[in-house]
Amino acid sequence: MSDKLRIIKVGGNVIDDPAALSEVLHSFSKMEGHKILVHGGGKKASIFSRKLGIEPQMINGRRITSAEDIDIVTMIYAGLINKNIVAQLQAFTCNAAGFTGADGNSILSIKRPVEPIDFGFVGDVKTVNHPVISQWLQDGICPVFCAITHDGNGQLLNTNADTIASELAIALVKEYETELIYCFEKQGVLADLADDNSVIENIDSIKYEALKNANSIHDGMLPKMENCFHALKNKVSKVCIGNINFLKDETSVHSTLIL
Amino acid sequence: MSDKLRIIKVGGNVIDDPAALSEVLHSFSKMEGHKILVHGGGKKASIFSRKLGIEPQMINGRRITSAEDIDIVTMIYAGLINKNIVAQLQAFTCNAAGFTGADGNSILSIKRPVEPIDFGFVGDVKTVNHPVISQWLQDGICPVFCAITHDGNGQLLNTNADTIASELAIALVKEYETELIYCFEKQGVLADLADDNSVIENIDSIKYEALKNANSIHDGMLPKMENCFHALKNKVSKVCIGNINFLKDETSVHSTLIL
Repeated sequence: MSDKLRIIKVGGNVIDDPAALSEVLHSFSKMEGHKILVHGGGKKASIFSRKLGIEPQMINGRRITSAEDIDIVTMIYAGLINKNIVAQLQAFTCNAAGFTGADGNSILSIKRPVEPIDFGFVGDVKTVNHPVISQWLQDGICPVFCAITHDGNGQLLNTNADTIASELAIALVKEYETELIYCFEKQGVLADLADDNSVIENIDSIKYEALKNANSIHDGMLPKMENCFHALKNKVSKVCIGNINFLKDETSVHSTLIL
Repeated sequence: MSDKLRIIKVGGNVIDDPAALSEVLHSFSKMEGHKILVHGGGKKASIFSRKLGIEPQMINGRRITSAEDIDIVTMIYAGLINKNIVAQLQAFTCNAAGFTGADGNSILSIKRPVEPIDFGFVGDVKTVNHPVISQWLQDGICPVFCAITHDGNGQLLNTNADTIASELAIALVKEYETELIYCFEKQGVLADLADDNSVIENIDSIKYEALKNANSIHDGMLPKMENCFHALKNKVSKVCIGNINFLKDETSVHSTLIL
């Protein structure tokens, strides 16, 4: 049986709260075995854009990444957030190293077609170079990925962190028994967004379709759950959504996705 | 006999000129054998600071790194510059990965004492973790280091890139025959700063002292040359200062430092 590998994605609101982030990183550092951290960017990039007088452009609630924006997200995600996470993990004696998809050619993307909407410098994952990532894990390194990839021709691309996490989990099933954990501020997928105790503990595809059709799921949760089922369909052995309590104790309340 | 390892530091003015940088990266990518790139930050951090309304603070011509400044240099050096260099090297089929000293705990520093001058978040190299860097080289990775290290307690520190290059070269003599090359915009150390053809091709310690006493050497060159002699005294086998022509062709004009 192959070794277990856990891929933990830490979401936006945790990144924006230094105390919460530090607590998550501490819990992450204590987790045994092979592990990879993937982080989003939270609101820092938008706040920073505005400081520079650049108003973030959105279409249908999704960010357009201009030439100026790709520089900003590279600075914030790959520089400020990623390297401070790495330094904190090192302080917790977790031997982290921070990467974009360009590093080691670890995640190659394709710039999204400009039709029907030109999202700018946004990339969709094409190939995960699992041997290089596996080599880092074997070297005793804990990789920390931010939401930046590259196109192989010198262009960095902004790439959804939830998708990076699921694509890493899928690519690494060739070498590990992989588990995917989305860690955010809520205990799991909520039946009622106003009620933090309404966690749906088990969600299979049928339940998911029913929830979706009833418009019960928060918009931001839908693509995350699509990533979850995509991972399960591609041999990722376990997919969960939860908060820091789940990182500390796997028996605490969370949502488990099932095919 | 051990393998050869070349450590190339690319200086400020090259970083600030996209065409020159691209040419240097192309030449670097063609160099055979183990190699490490170290880059400075050029003027981008200061330009960026001013855009944010923060005037860089200098004492005796040296930058003070405030809490705001360490965030800015982390963004610019470890994010924008480092990751764009990595993406460009990947496009030239050089399997680069970009690092700060926090990544893999590769370079540990000590925050400089606040007396006599408080330089803020500036670190002096304490330990280079040569086994982790050697492992990356053995994995087929070309490490690209920026001028950021860490203190092991979660704090990133701004660290002179020339010093990082020489400390890497010195630490890695345990495993490689190391060569250190400072690549900048001039062909070498100039006897007359106004005359680009006045390259001093061989400089030993006696000549260096004479040049220094005669105030013939440009101020910015002095600490670089101190790093050179420090490296030679610590078993680095070859130390040169030159421009891109030297990267392309080792027989072109350059300065060689000799003990």
